[in-house]
Amino acid sequence: MAESKKLHLTAFMRPVSLHTGAWRYPGAYADANFNLGHLKSFIQKLEAAKFDAFFMADHLAVLNMPVEALKRSHTVTSFEPFTLLSALSVVTERIGLAATASTTYDEPYHVARRFASLDHLSSGRAGWNIVTTGNPESSKNFGRDEHLEHSERYKRAREFYDVVTGLWDSFADDAFVRDPASGVYFDPDKLHVLNHKGDDLAVRGPLNMARPVQGWPVIIQAGQSDPGRQLAAETAEAVFCSPRDLASAKALYADIKGRAAAAGRSREHLKILPAAFIVVGDSAEDARAKRLKLDSLVHYDSAIASLSVALGSDATGFDPDAPLPVDQIPDTNASKTSLASVLKLAADEQLTVRQLAGRYGGYSGLAFVGTPQTIADEMAVWLAEEAADGFTVVFPFLPQGLDDVTLKLVPELQRRGLFREDYEGTTLREHLGLPRPENRFFPKS
Amino acid sequence: MAESKKLHLTAFMRPVSLHTGAWRYPGAYADANFNLGHLKSFIQKLEAAKFDAFFMADHLAVLNMPVEALKRSHTVTSFEPFTLLSALSVVTERIGLAATASTTYDEPYHVARRFASLDHLSSGRAGWNIVTTGNPESSKNFGRDEHLEHSERYKRAREFYDVVTGLWDSFADDAFVRDPASGVYFDPDKLHVLNHKGDDLAVRGPLNMARPVQGWPVIIQAGQSDPGRQLAAETAEAVFCSPRDLASAKALYADIKGRAAAAGRSREHLKILPAAFIVVGDSAEDARAKRLKLDSLVHYDSAIASLSVALGSDATGFDPDAPLPVDQIPDTNASKTSLASVLKLAADEQLTVRQLAGRYGGYSGLAFVGTPQTIADEMAVWLAEEAADGFTVVFPFLPQGLDDVTLKLVPELQRRGLFREDYEGTTLREHLGLPRPENRFFPKS
Repeated sequence: MAESKKLHLTAFMRPVSLHTGAWRYPGAYADANFNLGHLKSFIQKLEAAKFDAFFMADHLAVLNMPVEALKRSHTVTSFEPFTLLSALSVVTERIGLAATASTTYDEPYHVARRFASLDHLSSGRAGWNIVTTGNPESSKNFGRDEHLEHSERYKRAREFYDVVTGLWDSFADDAFVRDPASGVYFDPDKLHVLNHKGDDLAVRGPLNMARPVQGWPVIIQAGQSDPGRQLAAETAEAVFCSPRDLASAKALYADIKGRAAAAGRSREHLKILPAAFIVVGDSAEDARAKRLKLDSLVHYDSAIASLSVALGSDATGFDPDAPLPVDQIPDTNASKTSLASVLKLAADEQLTVRQLAGRYGGYSGLAFVGTPQTIADEMAVWLAEEAADGFTVVFPFLPQGLDDVTLKLVPELQRRGLFREDYEGTTLREHLGLPRPENRFFPKS
Repeated sequence: MAESKKLHLTAFMRPVSLHTGAWRYPGAYADANFNLGHLKSFIQKLEAAKFDAFFMADHLAVLNMPVEALKRSHTVTSFEPFTLLSALSVVTERIGLAATASTTYDEPYHVARRFASLDHLSSGRAGWNIVTTGNPESSKNFGRDEHLEHSERYKRAREFYDVVTGLWDSFADDAFVRDPASGVYFDPDKLHVLNHKGDDLAVRGPLNMARPVQGWPVIIQAGQSDPGRQLAAETAEAVFCSPRDLASAKALYADIKGRAAAAGRSREHLKILPAAFIVVGDSAEDARAKRLKLDSLVHYDSAIASLSVALGSDATGFDPDAPLPVDQIPDTNASKTSLASVLKLAADEQLTVRQLAGRYGGYSGLAFVGTPQTIADEMAVWLAEEAADGFTVVFPFLPQGLDDVTLKLVPELQRRGLFREDYEGTTLREHLGLPRPENRFFPKS
């Protein structure tokens, strides 16, 4: 009998959480941005729960926010993810370590080298989240007044991927003979000079790095635009995405896997992992109360600004403690989809303006809020209906929101056979069920 | 009574040693380039010996060598230093962690961010070796056919330094209030936007990083050219240099400290640390024999090519086991200084062609070869005569050559009061006796 399909779980981390109110939550580590001890404890708990990977989100700029919102945000500063993951590789043994590198504002030689090095340091646990960097503020930190145009960014990203993977293949896996008797350290016939000259990049190579333990670190992608999906289909092995509900997730899943198959790739070798904000409670009411409490910690000045953006019109004049005055929302050119989802949320959860504002100022993406049993039920449906191969878990607050997942939800998933009881392999590729890429310049046969 | 002047000692590391024959030396860890366990043991031994810092040398390319030499070299590949030092920060508590970043082939925002992050991870132990990257092969890995011209590189380096240090000063030291009650995470009046627009760089800022623990990581420089010395005098707090003897070291020391004073800086806040290859033996003869043994492990094909370069003419026709045939060396346009130093070395140490070749193919810079007592005598003279504030120690082979220094030479230096018995501070700045820089945008008074 074939083993039943299992979920993959990765943690999508910011040191204090992605939720902007989280640093004020009771028990939160407000100083976690520069406190290695807290980050050690988080990753070790995730490893004990057998998570596939620990992914640290990143920005290449202080985000452009009104100062009233900015000063309340814990996401402005933190450890740089690459140095952080390198440090965390030493205090963990199995969990994958994924970081972002920008194809727009970095050099392929540097990117290839750092990920290869992290892969060696961690004995095969590195993953590269390819981003083209959508935040236009970043361009100003890298000598450009104008952000590179969207399709140009994706064209460069595709070439950048070819160069980075080509650099990883600079040496055959068995190039290093290190024979003291003959004095030969490596076989020069097993060294390839890339000599890449393309539209956007010229990189000679070879990389000054032995081939990574995984052959290549795992390739991750998060884009949802058309060129983003196409890049994912052609290159990614894991996709972080943000569908809002089961129906849109199924459509996205089918689209990306279909594109991958059309590009000649196996559908199995590309894992779709929607981001899911998970709030676990002892009862449905307890979970809902935790979330409302968290949302209430987003300062109203920031929160109402976010709700105004979602509505497409100024909401600051509304009574915070009354229901949303639907008849006072003007018909603007703003996104109908966004407006419709605010109205639906307000109706479904019977939220006041203040509560809605806290939701939009905090975290308004896909969420599973309930008991371990109800959340496991939902996850099982997503897996069975081909909406997801697993989830990119967003913790509402730390450390408790993480503990709720690792100590309550994960055991429930394990009990149902939906999640591994222990790691079966040692590398991130093995956790995700991905093959080790052959060296394109030194094929095995 | 004022305490007597003490030496500073930093370790100038490649995982297998800088000496090209070292991987073949008995007991060597030939696989150390990608073996974290070995590097952990090295740095922990250096920390136990109270070294100021562990510095990992770097290249941005596979060096351009004839394939016969290249295939025998262990220096072609290794961990990338930044990921490595981040990992090693977790297994050490006091020793400084210094790495190179290129001002020619990197972005100031990335450089500022990574060093700030390492400084936070290590609680104030990071040092930045500013290099302009002299190896022309590197340009081809970064999209340029031609290497940036020397004076242009230094002009850009000076501006790059201003930008990086300016980015480190983005936040006042006390910007982060993290007050849950008011919901204010940081004081926006304590955030400075750099808005740098110069000849070579345009960087808006702010850096998305709290101010480093040390204010700024320690600034290190290694250039010896005229613009290199001037950059060091204006910016560096520690200088790695390569004088060949006491007289030239004193001249270099006086020149760089004089330039620093002329630039309005304290002579005490710039430490001159010549690179010294140290071979410790139980007797002078034992030390000399170790070195000859090591030099003999450089393959003759590589070694004789290096000697030919030093002589300025082809040496491959000479009898390897005879003395250097001085009358057969043609008078070429090659450097007279280099030729003269080969002839002096051959005469002083009575070396055969093979032994000379091994020296030039291995490591031919300043060396202290002797017993702990004779080496301590030499170091005391260099310190007393203002030729050095300490040394950048190059180990001949690992682990034994390192153990010889930490277990035999360091105790002798400590006995004489020339080296610390224990760390007195916790940061690299404190080890080196350097002040914490004031934030230029948020002065204390």
